Amino acid sequence: MTSRTDALESLLAAIREDRASGAAELADRGVAAMAQGVADLARAGPQERRAGALRLLQRVAALRPSMAPLANWTLRFVETLADAWDLPPAEWRRRAGEAARLLRAERAGFRDGLRAAARQPLGGAGHVVTLSWSSTVLDLLLAAAPAARVTVAEARPRCEGRVLAERLLERGRRVALITDAQLALAIDAADLVLIGADTICRDGAAVNKAGSRLAALAARAAGKPFLVAADSYKINPRAGADRMPLEAMDPAELWPERPEICTNVYFEPVPAELLSLYITERGAQDLEGIGALVAGWGARYAAAGL
Amino acid sequence: MTSRTDALESLLAAIREDRASGAAELADRGVAAMAQGVADLARAGPQERRAGALRLLQRVAALRPSMAPLANWTLRFVETLADAWDLPPAEWRRRAGEAARLLRAERAGFRDGLRAAARQPLGGAGHVVTLSWSSTVLDLLLAAAPAARVTVAEARPRCEGRVLAERLLERGRRVALITDAQLALAIDAADLVLIGADTICRDGAAVNKAGSRLAALAARAAGKPFLVAADSYKINPRAGADRMPLEAMDPAELWPERPEICTNVYFEPVPAELLSLYITERGAQDLEGIGALVAGWGARYAAAGL
Repeated sequence: MTSRTDALESLLAAIREDRASGAAELADRGVAAMAQGVADLARAGPQERRAGALRLLQRVAALRPSMAPLANWTLRFVETLADAWDLPPAEWRRRAGEAARLLRAERAGFRDGLRAAARQPLGGAGHVVTLSWSSTVLDLLLAAAPAARVTVAEARPRCEGRVLAERLLERGRRVALITDAQLALAIDAADLVLIGADTICRDGAAVNKAGSRLAALAARAAGKPFLVAADSYKINPRAGADRMPLEAMDPAELWPERPEICTNVYFEPVPAELLSLYITERGAQDLEGIGALVAGWGARYAAAGL
Repeated sequence: MTSRTDALESLLAAIREDRASGAAELADRGVAAMAQGVADLARAGPQERRAGALRLLQRVAALRPSMAPLANWTLRFVETLADAWDLPPAEWRRRAGEAARLLRAERAGFRDGLRAAARQPLGGAGHVVTLSWSSTVLDLLLAAAPAARVTVAEARPRCEGRVLAERLLERGRRVALITDAQLALAIDAADLVLIGADTICRDGAAVNKAGSRLAALAARAAGKPFLVAADSYKINPRAGADRMPLEAMDPAELWPERPEICTNVYFEPVPAELLSLYITERGAQDLEGIGALVAGWGARYAAAGL
């Protein structure tokens, strides 16, 4: 029992400490933690199982409050248990494992929807600017913008933009890497800007790597479309941009010799009025479409009593 | 003779290669190169001296076409020789050396004018955002904004913002260092943005470190004043922002392992419509005031036959 608890605790700690993975990858790890923790409730009664699952959901969601998919996929996980609360222990454990697999399959299916939604807005682009690393952006650049050359801003301090650049190069694409400071210059020369997002707020703002709002301001000034690619599980139906906690990371990443004067905030919201289009697995959406998806999530959280 | 020519050539090469100094420091080096080259003309006749001085002026100016002070101070240097073309060689050499000292003194006097112009717009600021290194900005923060804490964007790839941060810390000031990508977040929390400039274009655009236009867009969006501090010798009366050559530097500075995909442009123009105020040694100016200074420079270049 203790070793199982330890296993859960180390899964949770890994999510809390993981600064390299995107929101989608963290969601996978959150679901794995839910599967572990829910399986641990096998000997409990139906009430206790449900209460325990909801408690764990809230705990996982709180690990990285700026990462909405972590909360939404754990909610979805709990939803799949709706007819399972009184199963015998062995059956319950099987369902916990099954649910994790089911959710991974659901999420894998989003890829096709995102690609379909991106085909029209991205298909004609000759030059796309993006920043940092996003597995969604990589997939859409490969599948829906096959002719575009891509300029990637590095995303200090960790420079994850290099990862995106490498992956595109491996696929034979034309790529330029720039400092974040060169975003306005790059956007002047591009057809559009495409970013991923860690969260879509209830007011439609997209939370993404710092520099995203600067890119959006430059795109608006240059009259270039600014697109956000994000599946609907990135929607946080409970917080507007003004309520988003912006995590400050290790200041030594900026200047190892003088961490005491450094501020290292990774994420920032891009307000909805700067966004041209949302590419989701449920089609390309305008702000009104995002509003409907926000309402849907709100109803699901309410149904879970949260 | 050859060793004097070598001395001139190495001064010119040093200006061409110097990526660390600001425009004002480069102007000093340009004047030193003029003094050397003009002294070398001691044995020539008046016509040849004048032609040689103007040829050298054009050569020095062309070393760093985005650095207007280099051209203006070399023009000013030639202007001081107006009554000296037919002096005997020893006297001529003395005048060349004197002119260099005179110009340094003139330039040193600008400091008080800049401080006076900055007192009103900066005096009440509690929190100023800037980026990169500028000796003018440092002096104005110390002399005209004594109560302000300062947030400095690092200015990738060379991170000269650290130099400004260090200098402010040495003077006991409150300083935060941020990535360039955090500029919008920082400006939200600040009273105003203050940058230096390497050039003020004939259309009033300010050429400064990449990221400056992003900062200006963020300032406009947040309703914060965006101030440029630059003495009038930074005015390029002959080029608008659309004609400014933007120097691309060593791409290996961005990503040593993959320089072949990197683009490393240091400077970008901030268009006049994003600038709230110009702080010059001839007072705080609006765009109209800058237009008058531009016209003054145009007349001086015309008078030199350039």
